[in-house]
Amino acid sequence: MNSIGDIFRLTTFGESHGPAIGGIIDGYPAGIEIDISRVERELQRRRCGDGNSSDGVTERREPDHVEWLSGIYEGKTLGTPIAFLTYNKDCRPEDYEALRDKCRPGHADYTYQEKYRHRDPRGGGRSSGRETVARVVAGALAKQLLEAQGITVTASTHNRYTRCIVEGLPAGVGEPVFNRMNARLAYAMLSIPSAMSFTMGETPDDWRLSREEFPDEWVLHGEKNHLTKTNHCGGVQGGISNGMPVVFHVGFHPPVTHPDGMCCRDNEGNIHNIATNGRHDIDHSPRLSVIVEAMTAITLIDLIYLWKKNR
Amino acid sequence: MNSIGDIFRLTTFGESHGPAIGGIIDGYPAGIEIDISRVERELQRRRCGDGNSSDGVTERREPDHVEWLSGIYEGKTLGTPIAFLTYNKDCRPEDYEALRDKCRPGHADYTYQEKYRHRDPRGGGRSSGRETVARVVAGALAKQLLEAQGITVTASTHNRYTRCIVEGLPAGVGEPVFNRMNARLAYAMLSIPSAMSFTMGETPDDWRLSREEFPDEWVLHGEKNHLTKTNHCGGVQGGISNGMPVVFHVGFHPPVTHPDGMCCRDNEGNIHNIATNGRHDIDHSPRLSVIVEAMTAITLIDLIYLWKKNR
Amino acid sequence: MNSIGDIFRLTTFGESHGPAIGGIIDGYPAGIEIDISRVERELQRRRCGDGNSSDGVTERREPDHVEWLSGIYEGKTLGTPIAFLTYNKDCRPEDYEALRDKCRPGHADYTYQEKYRHRDPRGGGRSSGRETVARVVAGALAKQLLEAQGITVTASTHNRYTRCIVEGLPAGVGEPVFNRMNARLAYAMLSIPSAMSFTMGETPDDWRLSREEFPDEWVLHGEKNHLTKTNHCGGVQGGISNGMPVVFHVGFHPPVTHPDGMCCRDNEGNIHNIATNGRHDIDHSPRLSVIVEAMTAITLIDLIYLWKKNR
Amino acid sequence: MNSIGDIFRLTTFGESHGPAIGGIIDGYPAGIEIDISRVERELQRRRCGDGNSSDGVTERREPDHVEWLSGIYEGKTLGTPIAFLTYNKDCRPEDYEALRDKCRPGHADYTYQEKYRHRDPRGGGRSSGRETVARVVAGALAKQLLEAQGITVTASTHNRYTRCIVEGLPAGVGEPVFNRMNARLAYAMLSIPSAMSFTMGETPDDWRLSREEFPDEWVLHGEKNHLTKTNHCGGVQGGISNGMPVVFHVGFHPPVTHPDGMCCRDNEGNIHNIATNGRHDIDHSPRLSVIVEAMTAITLIDLIYLWKKNR
Repeated sequence: MNSIGDIFRLTTFGESHGPAIGGIIDGYPAGIEIDISRVERELQRRRCGDGNSSDGVTERREPDHVEWLSGIYEGKTLGTPIAFLTYNKDCRPEDYEALRDKCRPGHADYTYQEKYRHRDPRGGGRSSGRETVARVVAGALAKQLLEAQGITVTASTHNRYTRCIVEGLPAGVGEPVFNRMNARLAYAMLSIPSAMSFTMGETPDDWRLSREEFPDEWVLHGEKNHLTKTNHCGGVQGGISNGMPVVFHVGFHPPVTHPDGMCCRDNEGNIHNIATNGRHDIDHSPRLSVIVEAMTAITLIDLIYLWKKNR
Repeated sequence: MNSIGDIFRLTTFGESHGPAIGGIIDGYPAGIEIDISRVERELQRRRCGDGNSSDGVTERREPDHVEWLSGIYEGKTLGTPIAFLTYNKDCRPEDYEALRDKCRPGHADYTYQEKYRHRDPRGGGRSSGRETVARVVAGALAKQLLEAQGITVTASTHNRYTRCIVEGLPAGVGEPVFNRMNARLAYAMLSIPSAMSFTMGETPDDWRLSREEFPDEWVLHGEKNHLTKTNHCGGVQGGISNGMPVVFHVGFHPPVTHPDGMCCRDNEGNIHNIATNGRHDIDHSPRLSVIVEAMTAITLIDLIYLWKKNR
Repeated sequence: MNSIGDIFRLTTFGESHGPAIGGIIDGYPAGIEIDISRVERELQRRRCGDGNSSDGVTERREPDHVEWLSGIYEGKTLGTPIAFLTYNKDCRPEDYEALRDKCRPGHADYTYQEKYRHRDPRGGGRSSGRETVARVVAGALAKQLLEAQGITVTASTHNRYTRCIVEGLPAGVGEPVFNRMNARLAYAMLSIPSAMSFTMGETPDDWRLSREEFPDEWVLHGEKNHLTKTNHCGGVQGGISNGMPVVFHVGFHPPVTHPDGMCCRDNEGNIHNIATNGRHDIDHSPRLSVIVEAMTAITLIDLIYLWKKNR
Repeated sequence: MNSIGDIFRLTTFGESHGPAIGGIIDGYPAGIEIDISRVERELQRRRCGDGNSSDGVTERREPDHVEWLSGIYEGKTLGTPIAFLTYNKDCRPEDYEALRDKCRPGHADYTYQEKYRHRDPRGGGRSSGRETVARVVAGALAKQLLEAQGITVTASTHNRYTRCIVEGLPAGVGEPVFNRMNARLAYAMLSIPSAMSFTMGETPDDWRLSREEFPDEWVLHGEKNHLTKTNHCGGVQGGISNGMPVVFHVGFHPPVTHPDGMCCRDNEGNIHNIATNGRHDIDHSPRLSVIVEAMTAITLIDLIYLWKKNR
């Protein structure tokens, strides 16, 4: 399904070259003054990356003008669903005509074809990275709630490897057994297009430590953020936050569209060499941090609300 | 919460030294002859590992006699909830008396204390690995359904690293965007006690390949299991199975109870050195494969049922 | 939350005088040619009622032009979320200026004020009957799926009492215990604005029959639709359809806006007599049938998909 | 499925003459001293009714000894799942031998047969009223939470018609659109075996009032429980509580087993007259109040927790 979250829930819609991309946020509290400029800033980070240069990021000019359809009145949230969309304007479906009945290697064309038998071949349709626009909008709104509670989410990406750190989260958030914070984070991260790997811990190799080295030692009379001397467990024990920073890593595979063309498969299993006309990322690393932060924020708000329910 | 799955759903209960451990399986089809001896065999694998020796696995003698409470009549399932339990018999709560108000390093004692303020200190309570008994029982029943459809799940573990492979899964299973098969598998794997890392792909490093190497090339007129020359993506594209084997890896941190004793924290933040009396794994690797297989089977059956809904 | 359904799920958004009303349908199968004119016909029924005259129905001119945002490509569904909206055009917020801080009797103004502390006073905001536009759109699409399976849903309304009948539904649909078809129908019906009463049975008084009269007698070698001589149970036994027509009744309270004005309450508890300027139904009976049919169709498709999952 | 509730969730299991009946309560807060004697008192009310006499209630001697399997330590809840069961002891399956392949009129035998093809014919199996034991246990625990917040739930039954009233509930509980309090209550009530009708309002006919009479007039400077002069809406507006008592009515069909025997249907559609040997209620009215109260309490706690999430 196209929803994430139990009581703070994002539902998204939209194909890459369909009329619009957008979503509904259900469970957002009432009376919050939404910082629209912040949403735009986050979308800008998604478009161009964080660095000085946007080298490698697709040339598609996405204005990403967000239209707010509901849930906001006189600048403040109503507690009702916040619906938003951005119309897809800079579409060139003719770029994809040659791909109509072909499945590109490394893409989701074949699996969508097998699953649905009817598929939108333009720019990957629903499986396009463009769907993450809705995640980034919802993430910006979720971050605003987290920051009001003193919680920050920061990610950075090198070589398709993101280091994400959550600071200020109190101890006790996360549920035991199946709704563990680490399980929910892994779920959210692996739902990002091209994510392949998720690891908890201060470094990606902390879990390889020996049984003598792994357990984080207590600090005498330690408090939050200074509870233990090390943070090998990444701030989560038994699925529940311990008050230390929550730290995890996500690995992404490279963009899979080759500028020189691709060997594509038709429905009969024949292979065709097709030139690449659509616009695609050469390197999507610059985009990834803001998406990882968004999915982290969406996940944490949901768990925080579950935790608050009987306090 | 303590449930996993949308339409094939397992809910578990039980503390390590409480009266019983068990669960309810909701959504199991009717008319299936349950292979009870298979359940016992899987529980035996969980108890002793797969190898010739059970070196390192806790000495606790768990008879794990499963009592079936509902959902089965004259040996066949009714389609109604299958409830089961195993009473905790070999408990020695006195082993944990010294730990009553202490939090061990590397365990979930502190986070449960912070979350619930009232905690069962005996053997980790709800956070104990003993809870996985319920997962293994449900997994054995789920595997039986998978195998009837020609799908096998096999995991093996070396140095706390499990390679899990699913063979025979048709193309088209898994949902787009948030309910991707890889996201659901990551969620299920990270819900296993001591799991720290999840990676899709034939090897744990496939995602690091360059954009020239990563995309799996089509085989001319290929069919399932021979669709592509390589399987770098691990059998899942856009969150949906492509008919190739589904392959992923899970990394686990070491057992965190040290036989020589531990520096434990009391509620005032003082540190005490406590001798270890409870029985614990020295190496839990032998147990992990059957648990990974169980969680994989539970996840796949749910996704297969979602996929079948409108066929 | 603003979603209904487990695997066929409608999520709606929109305030009466906000920018737009709409929704997302998740779980709609792929490859279906959507009959757009049918959607418009149903919306027309919602606007004007079924009869020759629309006496009593609000004068607000709602063009209800539906914009399809996703999930449809070349006229056929993709299996991805179908998002749609209709912009609110004929808004006259100035009609509601006098009500800004006042709560009307019989409306949800007070409860929204107490719940959210920030409220859109224009035309009832989220609690307006206008929200049912999204239900009728989704209902039209659900009905199309039902009819392809030979299932029809027909409702008619007299004196704010609707008789709804479902024909062609096979035996075995509906789940035991909590997800009973009758419970799910009651839930869906009571979610309609101004619904107050739900009753299963061929007549609203069938359940009052004596224990000698109530049980429906079998017809010798009867088949579907002729299984029993009577249909006192309304086609559902133990929460599961028996193949007879499913019949139930829904009672609605009258429209609560009085044309002569209303005694309204401000936040301090003072009472003010306010003239009525907004446009409102005098009698909403003509609108109710199509909404009841829509909610019935949405509920049944979800239960049918759950039932099909392991066939 | 066999679960009810979003964040306070009851999952039940058990067939009437299977090994046991029970359930799991997930989401119960930690640190609560459970009043076991209260649970027993409620079960006693279920067994015998509230009155001096238990005339008409089945003679089956159900000891209903509840075994607590998890979630409680040293008398107080742990915040982890509370599992409980009662073994079925006084079973006489031989009473049902003649019914093995027959479907009784007015029962769920036929629909279970059609749905599952494999069915437990003893005492109605899963569809038996005996399943309500689990509801009453969970309801007793939920009521304890409500009462700690000053909220009481009281039902009484005359002629298979129950009047249920909730007092002390604050304004603002319940969600808009689909998760309305009245919709959730209707769902919970219609999930009770033999429930046929649900009506909000001080009397079952309040919704039939004219548009002049229906809207409840405000009391000047009124507070909770004295907000309006009348309570025609039954304390819920727009799906949200307004602080007045919540009042609704539930109608039940009569017990359907006739002591003189029944015309039963076999799988070929032939009709057989079968004598009645099992023990059954002649009049189940005495049992109904406690079950209605239980389902009301379970529903309200879930909605109260949802409402509290961002306060």
